[in-house]
Amino acid sequence: MEITLARYAGFCPGVRRAMRMAQEVLGDPERPAFSLGPIIHNPQVVEELERRGLRILPEDPGEWEAAGLAGSRVIIRSHGVRPHLAERLADMGAETVDATCPTVKKAQKAAMRLVGEGYHLFIIGNREHPEVQAILGHVNRDAVVIKETRELKEWWEGQTRMVRKIGIIAQTTVDLLTFRSLVEGLITEVPEMIREVSEMKLINTLCRNTLARQAEALQLALSHDLVVVVGGRNSSNTEFLRRICETAGARTVKVETAGELDTSLLEGVSRVAVVGGASTPRERLEEIRRLLASG
Amino acid sequence: MEITLARYAGFCPGVRRAMRMAQEVLGDPERPAFSLGPIIHNPQVVEELERRGLRILPEDPGEWEAAGLAGSRVIIRSHGVRPHLAERLADMGAETVDATCPTVKKAQKAAMRLVGEGYHLFIIGNREHPEVQAILGHVNRDAVVIKETRELKEWWEGQTRMVRKIGIIAQTTVDLLTFRSLVEGLITEVPEMIREVSEMKLINTLCRNTLARQAEALQLALSHDLVVVVGGRNSSNTEFLRRICETAGARTVKVETAGELDTSLLEGVSRVAVVGGASTPRERLEEIRRLLASG
Repeated sequence: MEITLARYAGFCPGVRRAMRMAQEVLGDPERPAFSLGPIIHNPQVVEELERRGLRILPEDPGEWEAAGLAGSRVIIRSHGVRPHLAERLADMGAETVDATCPTVKKAQKAAMRLVGEGYHLFIIGNREHPEVQAILGHVNRDAVVIKETRELKEWWEGQTRMVRKIGIIAQTTVDLLTFRSLVEGLITEVPEMIREVSEMKLINTLCRNTLARQAEALQLALSHDLVVVVGGRNSSNTEFLRRICETAGARTVKVETAGELDTSLLEGVSRVAVVGGASTPRERLEEIRRLLASG
Repeated sequence: MEITLARYAGFCPGVRRAMRMAQEVLGDPERPAFSLGPIIHNPQVVEELERRGLRILPEDPGEWEAAGLAGSRVIIRSHGVRPHLAERLADMGAETVDATCPTVKKAQKAAMRLVGEGYHLFIIGNREHPEVQAILGHVNRDAVVIKETRELKEWWEGQTRMVRKIGIIAQTTVDLLTFRSLVEGLITEVPEMIREVSEMKLINTLCRNTLARQAEALQLALSHDLVVVVGGRNSSNTEFLRRICETAGARTVKVETAGELDTSLLEGVSRVAVVGGASTPRERLEEIRRLLASG
């Protein structure tokens, strides 16, 4: 059996940066170290950091009093944070260490710029994702989050006032196909829109590392019988990788760890590819490779 | 035979304004009155103004010396003018009377704004149309004019440098279907574009009067056996009306005057509609109606 490990394996630059900042914070034993929510969407990595002393602060500020934040350092995870929560942390005497991914920061700024310029903002992505929540926080929640074309139509039909300026950005980890089909949907699914709207401004906030990872996964899926996608169950970009491989017609399985892999899937398979999300350590992929080679 | 005259018949507000300004200029017998090119795209109207003393200045400034412009008044037609030509007229002692349609003026401003903000400008429309030529003049010709999706692809393939910001406007009289399909084409025909481009800004410069006229023509074409489209042969908006009626499946004939109408076309026809371009006087449509009623 031939096994190919993706070239884009291991942490993306944004996650690497957040991990480096976590090490730094953990390096000061005098001060309690927190992260606001799990620092990245990978439970194994988060557990390892917890073992080394990082404590996870609940996302609900109602529970912060009990944590003892005065004098502590709190890492803002790569997905960013709603500004009022960062302010609240500072009020409670915590020093925030901002590990927001620079690409996510650009998306936040793009959102603020569009709303500031009077555009009605659309965010293509998942409403529940912490990155999207943080972006929403930066524009006082004055935006519509869409992940399917039909939502556009529903939103348009529910409008009572005239919308003259439309701004569009995307969650940074959305896949190119979703992004394109939703932008296209604005034109094809809501034909009145292009007549009514006087300005439409789209800022491409897609992460280039994510796009490269997706392109590689697609290529691997097209040339392999089975693709093992490795990443956190909560990881949005990992889930997009799975969808891309499946869309390409490859048999696709998603796991968090080597232990989850059902080796009976390998029967009759001659070419396997292993790909990983942006928050999946390279070693996790190597483990899977070893398991596949032995199995 | 049932004959329907379009409700949107006669001059659009921009043409009406230009005609009013022409009357004013002609009202001063002391000063020679010119228009820079035919004031609107309707030869019969232009001939009538010429009979009343308006002289048409050639578009090539090389021929202006001979015209004797000092002390004259020169009307800038509804389509607008390239700024350097307006300056040249002033240098030669002419007073310019700006009859540029306010909607066209908005398109010129949108073009300048986009180029000023660093967008690579696309103009959806006909390169040879005087409105487009005037818009191009306002941005030092720093724009790409497209009227078919394949031109987008060709342009993209011919690019050697990275284009990061794309701005889009349209000739004001382009029909909604052309506009939509070209905007859509940007996303579907050049799939790389949405990945490479970091910002895309579209300013809807379509004329609302033109859109209403087009919508009415479409509706009439769907409910009549024959549509007579009346307008100047050079008139862009009249030609779009003809195309819309033809696309709707109606038998369609375009004429400049009643004299051109071949009444043998009426055989077997029970419902006829008469529509006119933005620079077609209402009387011309009435003439056609009378001819149809008698024929």
